[in-house]
Amino acid sequence: MNGNRFGRLFQVTTYGESHGPGMGVVVSGCPAGLELDEETIQRELDRRKPGQSMITTSRGEPDEVTINSGVQDGYTTGTPIGMTIQNKDAESGKYEPFVTAPRPSHGDFTYSAKFGTRNWGGGGRSSARETVNWVAAGAIAKEVLEHEGVQVKAHVNQIGDVEAPEVSFEEMLEHTEDNDVRCAHPETAEEMQELIEDYQERGDSIGGSIYFEIRGVPRGLGAPRFDSVEARLGQAMMSVPASTAFEFGRGRDARTIPGKEHNDDWEFGDDGDPVPVENDHGGLQGGITTGEPIYGEVTLHAPTSIPKKQQTVDWETGEQKEIQVVGRHDPVLPPRGVPVVEAMLNVTMLDFMLLGGRVNPDRLDGQPGEYDTDYHPSSPRNE
Amino acid sequence: MNGNRFGRLFQVTTYGESHGPGMGVVVSGCPAGLELDEETIQRELDRRKPGQSMITTSRGEPDEVTINSGVQDGYTTGTPIGMTIQNKDAESGKYEPFVTAPRPSHGDFTYSAKFGTRNWGGGGRSSARETVNWVAAGAIAKEVLEHEGVQVKAHVNQIGDVEAPEVSFEEMLEHTEDNDVRCAHPETAEEMQELIEDYQERGDSIGGSIYFEIRGVPRGLGAPRFDSVEARLGQAMMSVPASTAFEFGRGRDARTIPGKEHNDDWEFGDDGDPVPVENDHGGLQGGITTGEPIYGEVTLHAPTSIPKKQQTVDWETGEQKEIQVVGRHDPVLPPRGVPVVEAMLNVTMLDFMLLGGRVNPDRLDGQPGEYDTDYHPSSPRNE
Amino acid sequence: MNGNRFGRLFQVTTYGESHGPGMGVVVSGCPAGLELDEETIQRELDRRKPGQSMITTSRGEPDEVTINSGVQDGYTTGTPIGMTIQNKDAESGKYEPFVTAPRPSHGDFTYSAKFGTRNWGGGGRSSARETVNWVAAGAIAKEVLEHEGVQVKAHVNQIGDVEAPEVSFEEMLEHTEDNDVRCAHPETAEEMQELIEDYQERGDSIGGSIYFEIRGVPRGLGAPRFDSVEARLGQAMMSVPASTAFEFGRGRDARTIPGKEHNDDWEFGDDGDPVPVENDHGGLQGGITTGEPIYGEVTLHAPTSIPKKQQTVDWETGEQKEIQVVGRHDPVLPPRGVPVVEAMLNVTMLDFMLLGGRVNPDRLDGQPGEYDTDYHPSSPRNE
Amino acid sequence: MNGNRFGRLFQVTTYGESHGPGMGVVVSGCPAGLELDEETIQRELDRRKPGQSMITTSRGEPDEVTINSGVQDGYTTGTPIGMTIQNKDAESGKYEPFVTAPRPSHGDFTYSAKFGTRNWGGGGRSSARETVNWVAAGAIAKEVLEHEGVQVKAHVNQIGDVEAPEVSFEEMLEHTEDNDVRCAHPETAEEMQELIEDYQERGDSIGGSIYFEIRGVPRGLGAPRFDSVEARLGQAMMSVPASTAFEFGRGRDARTIPGKEHNDDWEFGDDGDPVPVENDHGGLQGGITTGEPIYGEVTLHAPTSIPKKQQTVDWETGEQKEIQVVGRHDPVLPPRGVPVVEAMLNVTMLDFMLLGGRVNPDRLDGQPGEYDTDYHPSSPRNE
Repeated sequence: MNGNRFGRLFQVTTYGESHGPGMGVVVSGCPAGLELDEETIQRELDRRKPGQSMITTSRGEPDEVTINSGVQDGYTTGTPIGMTIQNKDAESGKYEPFVTAPRPSHGDFTYSAKFGTRNWGGGGRSSARETVNWVAAGAIAKEVLEHEGVQVKAHVNQIGDVEAPEVSFEEMLEHTEDNDVRCAHPETAEEMQELIEDYQERGDSIGGSIYFEIRGVPRGLGAPRFDSVEARLGQAMMSVPASTAFEFGRGRDARTIPGKEHNDDWEFGDDGDPVPVENDHGGLQGGITTGEPIYGEVTLHAPTSIPKKQQTVDWETGEQKEIQVVGRHDPVLPPRGVPVVEAMLNVTMLDFMLLGGRVNPDRLDGQPGEYDTDYHPSSPRNE
Repeated sequence: MNGNRFGRLFQVTTYGESHGPGMGVVVSGCPAGLELDEETIQRELDRRKPGQSMITTSRGEPDEVTINSGVQDGYTTGTPIGMTIQNKDAESGKYEPFVTAPRPSHGDFTYSAKFGTRNWGGGGRSSARETVNWVAAGAIAKEVLEHEGVQVKAHVNQIGDVEAPEVSFEEMLEHTEDNDVRCAHPETAEEMQELIEDYQERGDSIGGSIYFEIRGVPRGLGAPRFDSVEARLGQAMMSVPASTAFEFGRGRDARTIPGKEHNDDWEFGDDGDPVPVENDHGGLQGGITTGEPIYGEVTLHAPTSIPKKQQTVDWETGEQKEIQVVGRHDPVLPPRGVPVVEAMLNVTMLDFMLLGGRVNPDRLDGQPGEYDTDYHPSSPRNE
Repeated sequence: MNGNRFGRLFQVTTYGESHGPGMGVVVSGCPAGLELDEETIQRELDRRKPGQSMITTSRGEPDEVTINSGVQDGYTTGTPIGMTIQNKDAESGKYEPFVTAPRPSHGDFTYSAKFGTRNWGGGGRSSARETVNWVAAGAIAKEVLEHEGVQVKAHVNQIGDVEAPEVSFEEMLEHTEDNDVRCAHPETAEEMQELIEDYQERGDSIGGSIYFEIRGVPRGLGAPRFDSVEARLGQAMMSVPASTAFEFGRGRDARTIPGKEHNDDWEFGDDGDPVPVENDHGGLQGGITTGEPIYGEVTLHAPTSIPKKQQTVDWETGEQKEIQVVGRHDPVLPPRGVPVVEAMLNVTMLDFMLLGGRVNPDRLDGQPGEYDTDYHPSSPRNE
Repeated sequence: MNGNRFGRLFQVTTYGESHGPGMGVVVSGCPAGLELDEETIQRELDRRKPGQSMITTSRGEPDEVTINSGVQDGYTTGTPIGMTIQNKDAESGKYEPFVTAPRPSHGDFTYSAKFGTRNWGGGGRSSARETVNWVAAGAIAKEVLEHEGVQVKAHVNQIGDVEAPEVSFEEMLEHTEDNDVRCAHPETAEEMQELIEDYQERGDSIGGSIYFEIRGVPRGLGAPRFDSVEARLGQAMMSVPASTAFEFGRGRDARTIPGKEHNDDWEFGDDGDPVPVENDHGGLQGGITTGEPIYGEVTLHAPTSIPKKQQTVDWETGEQKEIQVVGRHDPVLPPRGVPVVEAMLNVTMLDFMLLGGRVNPDRLDGQPGEYDTDYHPSSPRNE
């Protein structure tokens, strides 16, 4: 109801504003016995961190996480894991002009309309700074999933009209972190980089999208209808700041595909169980996993904080006003969105794994599970 | 967890299988004092009913609803409303060939993988017959919203590659029910009808999409993040059978739009409050309503039940098998999907209205609220 | 929020008013593969049924249950089980005098205050008729638990000042159903019967209590704090109509017991694992099960519907008024409360078993589990 | 499911172990516009703090709270309030002997049985130190309720066999904090103090109970059945560490009271609305508030940590063992339990107020509401 809780058995609860004292997240439902330290979480936070490249905001946040509970002698105890991340580099003064004059397409006006007040510094609660909490929670979910052989990976597949060709799961694993754009196709990454710099120079910003894939998911996960995998992923992905579209399987294109072509015939897999000959349904049939890769896309609109002059009104003075959002902002969202999307996918999938009784505590202290990156050759996205 | 519950204050709980004795839905959280009879609900059920035209399945279900509780002397009492709809025209025999030989792209295999068994007649719980419950619940939500001046409307905007031009909210209200396709643009409707019949004749099916719009929503509804309006709509729309994409605002196109163009400047509205000059953000900023229309699209893939021959395997006999799904099926989903999408939008929006304290019981017994269909001239979809 | 939902993984959703068309309950989360028919449920409903003896209301309800979904060929499919029970013998006319003149200590006034209206016939939604739904749901939970060797049993241990001596679990199993009072101690049952008849003759009613015990619960069920077994049982038992006290372990008496006496020392059990030497903590330590029997008591106040003359006011006419509640009512609640309390205990415990991953679907189609009624000799209630 | 979440619209999420780095609590759903600072919360924490008197543990915890979010310029913003309290004086070494040899009647064994591990220092997550989080959350709820004229008060009404006579609400307000025992009846408090010291000297501990009362609650709060006020209070009160009984209204005594006596006749109140002549039902009828005071009792068993020698077993060595729990512990729980019980009552009642739409944001920045401590003269507890 209050927007700061996600998950059913793996529960994430968050707080924090962009320029408040600090961010915090409580993770409950993490199985006991998982090896876990702050460094594991920090690694993911660093991928999301501001100031990591020229195409991210220059705000200087070290984003150091502290674990306050739920871990003892390096292993989780099954009780809630409380984490905090202090805010260090807030410069609220820059936001004073916007207290009663909402920035275009930010949450300034709507938060004020809802609450009659708002944390105005840096966008307050509506700032994407909140996602630092998600990435911390997702880092824990990722660790558990790894032991079960489930793996999530995303990369930036489009910025403006620069679109990446299809890449394989292995390419995503190998190349995504190679460049600042987080596109697994190196040549396209360069083009994207140029496009972004171009918009940055013009004081503008640009939209883009993220492609994701989830491998190693066991069959039979998910529930009918309102708790189908796609319904829960839909909520998770539409929670990502700036997301305006969620697609899975053939996504938006499915509207032009005939049934005969879209349907996946069945054949026997190597283990003698039925597997779909193709995977046009993105690993899900009837809302439940087939065991094939789940894949989809999330569209993120252009950052709303741009240096260009824009028109607004001041509801206190009643005057029309021209404003310029100074602050320190990203010219494009998907590059830093990749770890955020991955985090929410990890959180959502672990929740399903726990609900399906598929997390084996005995496996947690052993070696990570084996996931076959060649998992199934028939995914239409990875031919 | 079990997929049959939706909503927080306005709660919908469902049961029923395609060929079981009957369907049922419990609606709790409906405010007391609403005038309500079975006819109001029946009207919506009839829009979803099979056999309503040549392009819908010929299964003969009258879909008569019975209200078992929560209504007294024609008015709701605030206590749970239990409704049942009997199944009359089940022909399970036709499904026997598929008990251990899953139909391509149905839930046959995944349900069996999850539960170790399944209601196999007519697709059982995975059948879209379940949506009869949603439409019954949505009909109640619609009644309440009408008293508050909130109105939901949808129409079919694409079938295969036949795409309708943009239509206004008034056109949707006026023309959607005029034709079997439920497209508010009459000429396009005819083209769609031809395309559908073409696929039907070929023993195939085709995908399509639904455009929706919500008017009269007050400002300040929704909550940050996981309970943002788009996150909840994302879950609701991805629950709709066969949906593969959910978009709102500029949707998937947002990936190619620069920030300067996508951002909505602010101006003063007629009542002296700030309103966005345009409405590229689909009525939502920071996950909370601006008061402008909320609009978006849902893609539904082609029906998976097609008469064409397809390949499958029988997990009992271990044999490859050619099958032909006979049954009685729709060649396209969006026409019957329109009342389903509207129902879930009504349910979701009433839930937000109740959470926001915006439903006034005193208004329920008066005349329906006034919604201005010219609401705001700046919506990019309704220029 | 709306009071008709209970349970987390095993979810019960109810509707229905005393004199409405019918009652209904949706059970979701029941594992697939359980043998289940209407007769199994009917057996429990018959224990709760009105008119079963001279000390229960003479309302003539057959309480016949219909299963609408979730069961196929005699086995559950894992999908929601919808059940309905029609109301047959409603005589609402008798309640007309109370529409605006609330009966003392019923929900008449409070329901009207909350909803601005109410189903006034027979107490409407506030009537204990609702518990027919609970008993139907509990019958299913009981079946599952039986396969896991968990068993719940209750009996009436006090009516007015007639108190039963402690009885063993076996005595409860053997004797509870022997008499109309449902007291497992035959001599006390006779005394209770006399006392009840005495109150009945005087046009009055009397309170009483129910003792319960749960055997065969595995160790380690429950969660810290707000989801401790006692917290969830507390909610379940305080939901029972007319309950005014819930106690477990030494209950209210614990206030006078020193720590040294109340503490349970540890010894090794037959299987080499630690067991408490005594079981003063009622099978729960830190909110989690020790594996020892869970036991406690629920107090039910006297029925509020009595033929004696009472004073009320009519909020429409503004007049003071003397009323006599005619209807058909029970002179005492615990005898019919026993199946209700057992039902809610079964529902609550199955929920914990599912959350703890302790329900093994493979066991469901075999023989019921073995529970040792001599389970542990040290329970202070069963020496 | 994980035991660290309470509340529906007013949501409390907690973490922390007795000897971990720190405790934390996230409060979401607090209305915007409430004046709030750390001092307000600290005041309540100090009432619960260890070391406040000779009859509480000497552990030296300052329990200083830090607010990390949700408050700006001294007022709440409507977004989640994250708070942390560091642990300073942990002496885990003392607990080493109990790692594999469970202390009698602690959660040592059950936590290990559930999780396969546990935070063993100071009882870890099972320690009552967790309640520091509840008191912090309750302090916020109390502030909101005060503006609405709702007031909660509790005092210790029994320690061992020393029972306090009934006291009025005013006496509770005036005298509870006067003595270390927190009994509002000064003479009884002295007797209790002596009794406690006596047990303390003998190396033993003793049980007791807390009486509570809630005034100023509007009519019509609560919902039928599973969400009745008593059901939710039942869960809240049975969550309190060491509670073994919850009673409201006439509680356990109701079992011996005839209907005619227990029923509350109706008369017109000063404002012309119906009020019960007496208040034997503890302010609740049909699970919904009558507007009269809600009152009840909670029994807390004797502290399990006692210096006396006790028997246990070591599951590692397989040996029987005599242990002595040294640490620093309370000889009795109710005195420090009073702020904890009040906190959970405040949290629960605010949740109901929010669900009932009874919190008026406009009142929050004005003067606290007026509650009439003479509220209604007919409460049987306050004659």
